[in-house]
Amino acid sequence: MENVKISDDIIKRMENDRFIKYCGVKLDEIKPGYARASLEVQDIHLNGVNIIQGGVLFTLADFTFAAAANSRGKVAVAIESSISFIKGISSGKIIAEAQELSCKKTLARYDVRISTDNGELIAVYHGTAFRKD
Amino acid sequence: MENVKISDDIIKRMENDRFIKYCGVKLDEIKPGYARASLEVQDIHLNGVNIIQGGVLFTLADFTFAAAANSRGKVAVAIESSISFIKGISSGKIIAEAQELSCKKTLARYDVRISTDNGELIAVYHGTAFRKD
Amino acid sequence: MENVKISDDIIKRMENDRFIKYCGVKLDEIKPGYARASLEVQDIHLNGVNIIQGGVLFTLADFTFAAAANSRGKVAVAIESSISFIKGISSGKIIAEAQELSCKKTLARYDVRISTDNGELIAVYHGTAFRKD
Amino acid sequence: MENVKISDDIIKRMENDRFIKYCGVKLDEIKPGYARASLEVQDIHLNGVNIIQGGVLFTLADFTFAAAANSRGKVAVAIESSISFIKGISSGKIIAEAQELSCKKTLARYDVRISTDNGELIAVYHGTAFRKD
Repeated sequence: MENVKISDDIIKRMENDRFIKYCGVKLDEIKPGYARASLEVQDIHLNGVNIIQGGVLFTLADFTFAAAANSRGKVAVAIESSISFIKGISSGKIIAEAQELSCKKTLARYDVRISTDNGELIAVYHGTAFRKD
Repeated sequence: MENVKISDDIIKRMENDRFIKYCGVKLDEIKPGYARASLEVQDIHLNGVNIIQGGVLFTLADFTFAAAANSRGKVAVAIESSISFIKGISSGKIIAEAQELSCKKTLARYDVRISTDNGELIAVYHGTAFRKD
Repeated sequence: MENVKISDDIIKRMENDRFIKYCGVKLDEIKPGYARASLEVQDIHLNGVNIIQGGVLFTLADFTFAAAANSRGKVAVAIESSISFIKGISSGKIIAEAQELSCKKTLARYDVRISTDNGELIAVYHGTAFRKD
Repeated sequence: MENVKISDDIIKRMENDRFIKYCGVKLDEIKPGYARASLEVQDIHLNGVNIIQGGVLFTLADFTFAAAANSRGKVAVAIESSISFIKGISSGKIIAEAQELSCKKTLARYDVRISTDNGELIAVYHGTAFRKD
């Protein structure tokens, strides 16, 4: 994992996320205002019609968002998120990238895009973070 | 689990959701236009600051929504979802209830509320389902 | 307009909303945690395919939400809103009702439902307000 | 207004939007998968605390989204939209740009960003369109 000017505290906080570990999500990069994470889709990630469960896609996007939001130093928590499911897949590697739209004193906004290995868009996520003092 | 006029196919489809099983979510009730599911919060559900991960709450809400949306017979898939995180918790039982707002030929809408055992609201979810022919 | 324990300041602030006046929206009731507003659909409210413009429905819902959010005393501003369009109409009276989901120190959440005169649901809205000190 | 490969029918449909005309929104450009519109903020657009009403921002974003979604030929209607309010302003020109995220047989997704004349982001919008046959 590459890290530019990200404190050890933040890295530890992200690595201490037990649900993320349990789901198999990997944080691949974090820098100020940006994060990237990925997941290899396995059988445990599928729903009853054998496509990736919406909760898995949300978890991946939400964690990537949280990494980007926490990259700014203050502890940031999600208060509001929305996700659009564009394409259902059943296997392969998926990658989430979070981009910062705005970061103010109390609120920050990020867009996350989840794509397959070969760049096909499968979901988009928008999240609002509350930044604690 | 109580079931009123819900076909075995739908129950099987919901029970075949491997991510739901992996997360420990239980479907408690399904009837036309309604579903209820629950989860006992465990250590694997916590994030890096020791509160329940947003992805866990989303997964619980999304599954409850999917159960309610599929209760109408046609296969229904989520196309759009939003969630508001109201209160962070670290332990105990949480319950999600999905209520139908509308169910038309192609689109159906549901609200889901997640509460603690003693009725405190912790998250609200809104989902739109696409109903396949 | 009925008002229970709502200060004159808040009523004035709502009545001073020029866009609301321009659109023909009427505030019908405001009480702590609740508001109701209405609109008679006219030709100026229609879009290019002769149904009510989404912006009109949003404006009605958002104002009803703002009235309910401001009913608690503090100045409250919308930070995040979502709307689902359920049914398109071209005439008649529409009514929006805002219900409080939660109201905490800094954030408050409200659901708004827009219905026709005879109770048919045409849109649902969810809003998050930031409460200023 | 520049138009590339956009049929007269679509232009007429967008220009026939009476609420857009009433609000003073101008369509500045439309091409396949993209649209741009703008508005000069006037007194009628302000709310009770003298900042631009959320409904005005939504109307501008939603119309820009609709222009982009209809640029693909089929009649497209909004089914689900969300908006984040980033900065409140009281005057000046604002510009909305819609970018296509995906356009499939029945559903299409667009992001809209609203900025001031000098590029400051004031709101972001995400919309899902249903494409009729």
